[in-house]
Amino acid sequence: MSAIGKVYLIGAGPGAQDLITLRGARLLAQADVVLHDALVTDEMLELCPQAEKILVGKRCGQLSTAQQFINKQLVDNARKFPLVVRLKGGDPMLFGRADEELRALEEAGIDVEVVPGITTALAAAATSKQPLTKRGVARSVAFFTSSTAPEHTEHAAIPDTDTLVQYMGGREAAATAERMLAQGRRADTPVLVIENVSRPDQRILRLTIATLAQGLGSTHGPVLVMLGEAMKRRAHQAADIKASTDIAPQRQAS
Amino acid sequence: MSAIGKVYLIGAGPGAQDLITLRGARLLAQADVVLHDALVTDEMLELCPQAEKILVGKRCGQLSTAQQFINKQLVDNARKFPLVVRLKGGDPMLFGRADEELRALEEAGIDVEVVPGITTALAAAATSKQPLTKRGVARSVAFFTSSTAPEHTEHAAIPDTDTLVQYMGGREAAATAERMLAQGRRADTPVLVIENVSRPDQRILRLTIATLAQGLGSTHGPVLVMLGEAMKRRAHQAADIKASTDIAPQRQAS
Repeated sequence: MSAIGKVYLIGAGPGAQDLITLRGARLLAQADVVLHDALVTDEMLELCPQAEKILVGKRCGQLSTAQQFINKQLVDNARKFPLVVRLKGGDPMLFGRADEELRALEEAGIDVEVVPGITTALAAAATSKQPLTKRGVARSVAFFTSSTAPEHTEHAAIPDTDTLVQYMGGREAAATAERMLAQGRRADTPVLVIENVSRPDQRILRLTIATLAQGLGSTHGPVLVMLGEAMKRRAHQAADIKASTDIAPQRQAS
Repeated sequence: MSAIGKVYLIGAGPGAQDLITLRGARLLAQADVVLHDALVTDEMLELCPQAEKILVGKRCGQLSTAQQFINKQLVDNARKFPLVVRLKGGDPMLFGRADEELRALEEAGIDVEVVPGITTALAAAATSKQPLTKRGVARSVAFFTSSTAPEHTEHAAIPDTDTLVQYMGGREAAATAERMLAQGRRADTPVLVIENVSRPDQRILRLTIATLAQGLGSTHGPVLVMLGEAMKRRAHQAADIKASTDIAPQRQAS
């Protein structure tokens, strides 16, 4: 059986429908099949009413077997349909298991292209108006996670960049804060915790590493933790909004 | 004089017209004035034919006085027009001097909102099909630059993450490679150098830290350097393309 279709790995961005790229939206509107994560929002899937939509992947931590099943579904669909989209929350190339999917498609001789998406950290920086870099203060930023690979239970070192962004940081945040203190970060380092970035139920919390070490309490969606002196609030910066409206989809300019 | 307008700091993405977000494109089409960097492409400015377009900022390294002039232009225009766009290459919150512009607007009492953009590293990962993270191999990535602040001539330490991405890495790349070797990175660590990401004259080079240390030769546009084991080429990965067509704007699916 020869390959007839092409697969596009597309980043959906953080959730709001209008934070996907023009290219991503156009391809979604042309897709025959869309295989998507649980993190992809319903409003995003409204961009492909014509497509067969297949939910794949788990919300937190995928087992290798699950990934192999996704790989097989991608290959099988590309042998049946001309335009197959693999739609991922955020960006496909950052904590997105893209390596495994690219490898499977290439081994099967199937043409594949990647369309980048707005990764959660950039959407979080935008909605909180808190730049990740700042002249003279923060010249480097690291994105990391403690839970990419369930089989790796030992902790990797926390990066030494000026700004730090922990993806999928909910359960791990307090332990990470303890390790940062042990690695010599100041206890009063400003921290922003953003839950459900860009969605109607978005929440922003301002903490310090010391208060983060006491735990986050209950969270109900994907949590991003941003730390460093760049997270310090500016003198005239507006108060943070608990349920953001300014990053929710906008049909008209306000 | 009271503030009447709102300013949107919008990320244009790496250059291709269809790699801006839907939200960014919609706001561009409604803008009265667009203040843009030299890095913003002509095709991107076609999205705002109705707007007055003002080129601000230098291509490499802005002096503080230049930044203060940009801040003043933003404030002045927001006092004259309802919808002012500040359009930046890549994402505004990553190496974008957003802190200074946000501060100036907030101090003037002007409403401001940030719309994220595809940062160059994610566009480079997409076009090269080389994920920045990889299960079991690369669990963290840092974005850094050596040339954010012209007044800081001392070198900051190079981050210790698994994957490294150096923005504006052209002139600095060889020196950075030397420092990486000194910091204990393996000489055969795979390196990707991508010039003019997403544009018709995009070039991708595969090197190692050892060969990068010998210098890049001449480059003609913004250069991104990506390093780490995650950059290793996959067994069935297609050869890199010197002048990419697959990330150039697409009017139709191919």
